[in-house]
Amino acid sequence: MRLMYEQVTDTLQKKLTSYGTPDDQADLVSKQIARNSLEGVHTHGINRFPRLIRNIKEGIVKPGNTPTLMHSFQSMENYDGQLGLGIVNATFCMQRAMDLAAEHGIALVALRNTNHWFRAATYGYQACDAGYAALCFTNTVPNMPTWGAIDSHLGNNPFMMAFPKADGSHVIVDSAMSQFSYGALELAQLEHRDMPIDAGFDSEGNLTKNPEEVIRTQRILPTGYWKGAAMSFVLDLFAASLSLGNSVSMLGKQNGDEHGVSQMFIAIDYGRIADHVSVETIVEQAINDLKSSMPDSGTEEIVYPGERPLRIRRKNLEEGIPVDESVWKTILAL
Amino acid sequence: MRLMYEQVTDTLQKKLTSYGTPDDQADLVSKQIARNSLEGVHTHGINRFPRLIRNIKEGIVKPGNTPTLMHSFQSMENYDGQLGLGIVNATFCMQRAMDLAAEHGIALVALRNTNHWFRAATYGYQACDAGYAALCFTNTVPNMPTWGAIDSHLGNNPFMMAFPKADGSHVIVDSAMSQFSYGALELAQLEHRDMPIDAGFDSEGNLTKNPEEVIRTQRILPTGYWKGAAMSFVLDLFAASLSLGNSVSMLGKQNGDEHGVSQMFIAIDYGRIADHVSVETIVEQAINDLKSSMPDSGTEEIVYPGERPLRIRRKNLEEGIPVDESVWKTILAL
Repeated sequence: MRLMYEQVTDTLQKKLTSYGTPDDQADLVSKQIARNSLEGVHTHGINRFPRLIRNIKEGIVKPGNTPTLMHSFQSMENYDGQLGLGIVNATFCMQRAMDLAAEHGIALVALRNTNHWFRAATYGYQACDAGYAALCFTNTVPNMPTWGAIDSHLGNNPFMMAFPKADGSHVIVDSAMSQFSYGALELAQLEHRDMPIDAGFDSEGNLTKNPEEVIRTQRILPTGYWKGAAMSFVLDLFAASLSLGNSVSMLGKQNGDEHGVSQMFIAIDYGRIADHVSVETIVEQAINDLKSSMPDSGTEEIVYPGERPLRIRRKNLEEGIPVDESVWKTILAL
Repeated sequence: MRLMYEQVTDTLQKKLTSYGTPDDQADLVSKQIARNSLEGVHTHGINRFPRLIRNIKEGIVKPGNTPTLMHSFQSMENYDGQLGLGIVNATFCMQRAMDLAAEHGIALVALRNTNHWFRAATYGYQACDAGYAALCFTNTVPNMPTWGAIDSHLGNNPFMMAFPKADGSHVIVDSAMSQFSYGALELAQLEHRDMPIDAGFDSEGNLTKNPEEVIRTQRILPTGYWKGAAMSFVLDLFAASLSLGNSVSMLGKQNGDEHGVSQMFIAIDYGRIADHVSVETIVEQAINDLKSSMPDSGTEEIVYPGERPLRIRRKNLEEGIPVDESVWKTILAL
């Protein structure tokens, strides 16, 4: 089924309000979740909403709470997220990073005791729409073994970098540190197909494209093998240390669903040292050059990072968001 | 053959001086290049020295030049590297980023018209030794196709993140955006062995572990497939835009060896918002947890990013640096 964007936001907003979420927070969260589905990121859109409501019921997500300042020094601040809604906390912190960047050029905000921010790109769009370049990342519960290991001591710790374009078609890289999410593996398993490249290890310790094997061993592959494993670890160190928050390791010792994660947000007011006309020329030239690549036989068109969601968005704004009927029934019954 | 560290630095320093490098720059550059070999990073150590001298002779690396300030705003500065020695320029910029971070908390320095910095980790150690967390990256000439493309429009754009440890055994991630360097492929080809994982594409457009095939097609694999391709692109945008410098695309239009690349340095004086005792506890706990991972049958011990170079360093300080005899002869004859 397809639902129009406004119908989705209305429904999600009412549900959030009925579970004690203040109007402004319910408005923000419902719009961002609907936007993720609108732009084709279903795993971090509507499909995740029932879990959010469950976590609110369990008391590990606390609607209404907002971040409290712990420490500040010039262009840096860190906050305790008070286990508030992840999207609310992260939006607040990216906004603070931008406010500080307007004053200082570059700024950093670290956040602890927060919750799943849904989609990393959300905070890239937020920054780019206001004319800032940005990067941010979050840690997660342990869900990935390091390179050469069998058991999970790393998170897939999504990482985001964003650079604005004047026309709003921003360059956005939103990448978890695992090559595939468990969501993607489960979908392939349902559809009885292999992944296009190695996705993890089988029970013999060999790399495999078979999603079922990887789900069984829970040995999901870090993106870039040893490289993503290393990157995941250092992202965790930055986020947990600067926020004085939970590391992946500590999150693994909690009971129940993931909560109280650590995040970091950097905003850059680059226009202060690089005139916008020159920057736009450099960006346009780089994009045109990338898109002039010769596609291989399996590729119709080369796109730049961030281009695809824009197209899906345009289509789904017109035709409606594709929504899984059973998920929607679950949401209506919440 | 093995050579002691001091013998290597002495020799490199004299050669650099004889090609017009001022004493202080020759001292810094020779020590860093020797250190890279000392720590096992041969491709970015002594083995690259003949190419540096060749580039000096060609006039595309200009010893003695130093970066000139273009613009500054609070915690951000950008510089023109005047085609000076890459190690000199990058060291200067990371130091400026630290000086600015001491004042502002987090700081950013962008650099254009600079040259190959040899090893990204160098600037991580520099920051960590002074107690700063850091990240930096550089662009390169186009040497990697984007995902789905046949021809190279991306650089392998090395990326570095570093977090200090009080005892000096810093956490350092130094990762190019290609899964393997051409240096690694050439070595495997010489030794008639396949790479352990897919390294690129063969002439049929299939993924292959065969180094010879990849060298032939020049379709080297981005780390994490589409993920590293996207990351490489956005790193280039940041470095080129903020420094008003050459993008990968522009570097591809130059004649001769790579020169005039763009780089970015961020330093974080994290102790201003996070007390050192708490941070050290978080870092130690995360490292211990990572190292407690259960190794698979092919892995002796799980190490954290940055641990291995330390061990190689200790061994080579005692036993001498393994040096390729023909490379050393070439250097002595320069």
